[in-house]
Amino acid sequence: MSSHHIVRDDQEPALIIANGASCNPELLGQLLEWSPLVIVLDSAMERVMQLDIKVDVLLGDFDRDFDANYYKEKQYPIEIVHTPDQSKTDLEKAFDYLHQRNIPAVNVVWATGKRTDHTITNLTNIVRYREKLKIVILDDHSKVFLLPKKFEKWYTADTPISLIPIGHVTGIQSENLFYPLQNDTLTIGYRTGSSNHVVNDGIVIIEHDQGDLLMMECSD
Amino acid sequence: MSSHHIVRDDQEPALIIANGASCNPELLGQLLEWSPLVIVLDSAMERVMQLDIKVDVLLGDFDRDFDANYYKEKQYPIEIVHTPDQSKTDLEKAFDYLHQRNIPAVNVVWATGKRTDHTITNLTNIVRYREKLKIVILDDHSKVFLLPKKFEKWYTADTPISLIPIGHVTGIQSENLFYPLQNDTLTIGYRTGSSNHVVNDGIVIIEHDQGDLLMMECSD
Repeated sequence: MSSHHIVRDDQEPALIIANGASCNPELLGQLLEWSPLVIVLDSAMERVMQLDIKVDVLLGDFDRDFDANYYKEKQYPIEIVHTPDQSKTDLEKAFDYLHQRNIPAVNVVWATGKRTDHTITNLTNIVRYREKLKIVILDDHSKVFLLPKKFEKWYTADTPISLIPIGHVTGIQSENLFYPLQNDTLTIGYRTGSSNHVVNDGIVIIEHDQGDLLMMECSD
Repeated sequence: MSSHHIVRDDQEPALIIANGASCNPELLGQLLEWSPLVIVLDSAMERVMQLDIKVDVLLGDFDRDFDANYYKEKQYPIEIVHTPDQSKTDLEKAFDYLHQRNIPAVNVVWATGKRTDHTITNLTNIVRYREKLKIVILDDHSKVFLLPKKFEKWYTADTPISLIPIGHVTGIQSENLFYPLQNDTLTIGYRTGSSNHVVNDGIVIIEHDQGDLLMMECSD
C-alpha cells in the first residue's frame, strides 16, 4: 500500500477519486502523497483496488450490485458512507461530507472523461460550493477551479489560461493576459475566455463582479 | 483507403474530426460510411493519416509548425482552408465553412477528452449555431445535440438521458422521463437535469420556452 498517511493534517486537501476516466498514475501518486483523507466514489473502488491505495472513505449509493461491505476487511479501517439520495451526484455528496467534517479543501481526480454528462456536471457544479470548500479538479491535461472575485497568482510566460463562465459573468478585468479583459462580460455558449495565455513571467490578476468564473489551466 | 464516397449527397451529415481524444475506430467507421464530406481540424491530420481515411478538407490556423501543404499530394484532391482568425476555435470555423456551403448537418468526433477547456468550449458553443447547422457531437460514451423548442423521439425504456442547460432554461416540460419536468427551470452549475432516464419504450417529449438545452445520450 502506498502510505499517504505521513501528514495527518486536515488542513491539507483531501482527495476524492471519482468515477470517470482514470488519470496518469503519477498524478495520482503526487496527490496521494499529501492527502490526509482519501475518498473513493462508488464502483470506482474496483479500479482503485488494483492500484494498491489505502482508502479512508468509500461513499456512494451502491445501486448497481456493488457490495461495499466487501471492502471493510480489505481496507480496514475504512468508513463506508451510504448516500441513497438521488437528487445529488455522488461527487456532490462527497463535497457535503467533507464540509460536514470541516475539511476546507479537496482535490478531485477521475471526475472527467468517459460520459460527457458526468464531465460537464462535475465541472460546473463546483460553483455552488464557493463558500463551503476549495475544490480543484485535475486530470492529465487540466486543472480546474472556481475563481474568487479577485484572483492573483504567479505564472510563467505563455502558460495557457482559459476562463470559462458558468452562466453569465460581468465586470471582468485582467492583468498580464495576452487577450486582456477590460470590464468584459462572458457568457457560456456565446462568449468565453478559452485559450488565452500569460504574457510575462509574473503575477496574473483576474477580477470579476458578478457570476461564477472557472479557471482552467490546461495543456496538450 | 476506406471509401466513404458511395453517397455524394450533401443532405447526409458531413463529418468533422476535431483535435481532442480519438474515439473508437468502429464509431468513426460507421460515421465515415455515410459522410459525403470529411473535414479534419489542424494537426489532428497527423493522427487521421494513420487511419487510412480519405479527407476532403483540412482546416485550421496551422500555427504550430504544421505543414498543411504536405497533405496536398497524399490526400489529392483535398481542399486546404487556412483560418488564421484567433477569435474563433477551429471547430467554429469548420461550422462556418459548412454553413457557407449550405450543408445543413454535421457529426463531430474527437471534440471531447484531453483538455477540459476545449471539451467544455466545444460542447457549449454549438448553441450559437441553432439556426445554421444541425450539430451532433459524439464520443465513445456520449451523443450530444441542441434540443429544439419541442423535441420528440422514440427511446427504449431505461435509456439514460441528461438535460444540460447552457445558461438558464425556462418552461421545461417532459413526457416519459423518470424524473418528470413540469414547467421547470434549469440553470447550469445550480440545477441541471443530468442522469434522468426513459420510463417506457416509446416517445419521449421535451419542450422548453427560453434558453439553450443540450440533450446528452450517454452510457458507461
